[in-house]
Amino acid sequence: MGPGDPDLITVKAARILGAVPVIAFFAKAGKQGHARAIASTYLRDGVAELRFDYPLTVEIPHTDPRYIDAMTACYDQAAEAIGARLAAGQDVALLCEGDPFFYGSSMYLFDRLRERFAMEVVPGVLGMTGCWAQAQAPMTHGDDVLSVVPGTMPEDQLMAALARTDAAVIMKLGRNLAKTRRVLTALGRADRAIYVERGTMADSRILPLAEIADGAAPYFSMILVPGRQGQR
Amino acid sequence: MGPGDPDLITVKAARILGAVPVIAFFAKAGKQGHARAIASTYLRDGVAELRFDYPLTVEIPHTDPRYIDAMTACYDQAAEAIGARLAAGQDVALLCEGDPFFYGSSMYLFDRLRERFAMEVVPGVLGMTGCWAQAQAPMTHGDDVLSVVPGTMPEDQLMAALARTDAAVIMKLGRNLAKTRRVLTALGRADRAIYVERGTMADSRILPLAEIADGAAPYFSMILVPGRQGQR
Ligand SMILES: C[S@@+](CC[C@H](N)C(=O)[O-])C[C@H]1O[C@@H](n2cnc3c(N)ncnc32)[C@H](O)[C@@H]1O
Ligand SMILES: C[S@@+](CC[C@H](N)C(=O)[O-])C[C@H]1O[C@@H](n2cnc3c(N)ncnc32)[C@H](O)[C@@H]1O
Repeated sequence: MGPGDPDLITVKAARILGAVPVIAFFAKAGKQGHARAIASTYLRDGVAELRFDYPLTVEIPHTDPRYIDAMTACYDQAAEAIGARLAAGQDVALLCEGDPFFYGSSMYLFDRLRERFAMEVVPGVLGMTGCWAQAQAPMTHGDDVLSVVPGTMPEDQLMAALARTDAAVIMKLGRNLAKTRRVLTALGRADRAIYVERGTMADSRILPLAEIADGAAPYFSMILVPGRQGQR
Repeated sequence: MGPGDPDLITVKAARILGAVPVIAFFAKAGKQGHARAIASTYLRDGVAELRFDYPLTVEIPHTDPRYIDAMTACYDQAAEAIGARLAAGQDVALLCEGDPFFYGSSMYLFDRLRERFAMEVVPGVLGMTGCWAQAQAPMTHGDDVLSVVPGTMPEDQLMAALARTDAAVIMKLGRNLAKTRRVLTALGRADRAIYVERGTMADSRILPLAEIADGAAPYFSMILVPGRQGQR
C-alpha cells in the first residue's frame, strides 16, 4: 500500500484492489487500520473483508513468551481464515503498509501459506522512500552504503551499525528517540539528520532532528541521515 | 519509474506522465533508454522529449578527471535544457529508474535546479524491492539491519560492510561478481544469496548465487542476502 498517500500505490496494486473479491489486513484493535484506509479509494463495492486485530500487548515486552505466543496465535488464525477463502477458490489480497517483505507482518502469513497456495508478491514504495522524497533529501550517491537500522536495537549495536555507514535510516523510533540522538551526536551525524513523521500522509511533519524534543515518537516516524553529497 | 514492469509505477507517476507536456530522461547512446521504455504506455500523444545521452566513457575509469568532467558537462547541459522549458512555463517530468533519490542521476539535476524552480519528487518502487518481491524472498524481520552496498567498493570495505549486517543487497555488480562472491563465501553468507537479473522485466532471471558463473554481470543485476528468518 506504499508509504501513506493513496496515490503512491502501484498501478498493479490499484488494479488488484479493484478486482479482488476478498481483502485481508491487520489493524490495531479499535482503529480503522492504516493499510485498509489507504486501500479505500480503490476497493470495489461489496468486497469481503477479513480483519485481524493485533493482540492487545502494549504492556508486555516483545521478548516475553506471552507476547510471542499471542502473536503466533494471531498469525495462525489469520493464515487459517485466508486459507479457507483460497481453498474455496476466492482470491484474497493481503494489504500491507509500504512493501510486504520489508519488516512486514505479511511475511509470517506468506511463510504459513506458501506451500499450499500460489502467491504473488506485489512490491510497494517503502515508507522510507516516501519519507526521503517528501523531505527532498537525496539519500545515496556513487559508492555510498545505506543501512536501515531499527531504533529498537541496544545502544552499542546501534552505534556499531551507524558508525560504518554513509547513509542511514532509523525506523521504529517509538521510545528510542533519545538513544538514537545520543548515538548520532556521538558519531557527529546528528546535524544533518532529518525527522519525518507520517511521511506522505495528510498530517505529515518534517523537521531537522535538532528541532524535535526527546520523548515518545509516534509509530509512523523515522530519522533519515543522507549520505555523502555527490560533487557533480 | 520503478523496477522495470510498467505496472509497478505509482498511480501518481502514471497520472503525471499522462498530463505533462515535456518529459526528460537519460539514456545510453544508441539505446532507447530504460526509463523512457517503461513510461511509453502512459505518455500522451505529442509529448515533447528531452533526451540526454550519457557520454561514451566505458573505457575510462570513473575516477578519471576526464570522466568526471564529461559527466559534469552532461548534467550541466541537461539542467540547462530542462531549466529553459520550466522558465517558459512548461512542466517537465524527469524520468528515473527505480526511485530518483536512491543512487539516481536525477539527484544531480535536482541539485542544479532546486533554487530556481519548484520541484516535486515522486517516490518510486526501488529496483531492489521489485527484485525481492519477484524472488519471493522476505528480506527483513524484527530487529534486522539491512545494508545496501555497491559492488564497486574495494574488497576490504565490502567485507567490513557485509560482516556487520543481517540482510544485504549488493548493487552495481558489473565486473564485481567474483569479488562479491569471495566476500560472501568468507562470511559464510553465500549459500542463501540470490542473484536477480532484470528483476520484474520481461526477461528476468532469478537464481541462487551458487548457480551463476563469475564474469561480467549485466547492468540490471543485484545480489540479495535475506536477513534472519523470523520464527513466528
Ligand atoms: C513494521 S515497519 C513496516 C515497514 C513497511 N513495511 C515499509 O515497507 O515501509 C514500521 C516502521 O516503518 C516506518 N514507516 C513506515 N511508513 C512510514 C511513514 N509513512 N512515515 C514515517 N515512518 C514510516 C516507521 O519507522 C515504522 O515504525
Ligand atoms: C545507478 S543504480 C539506480 C538505482 C535506482 N535508482 C533504484 O531506485 O533502484 C543502478 C543499479 O540498480 C540495480 N537495479 C535497479 N533496478 C534493477 C532491476 N530491475 N533488476 C536488477 N537490478 C536492478 C542494479 O544493481 C544497477 O546496477
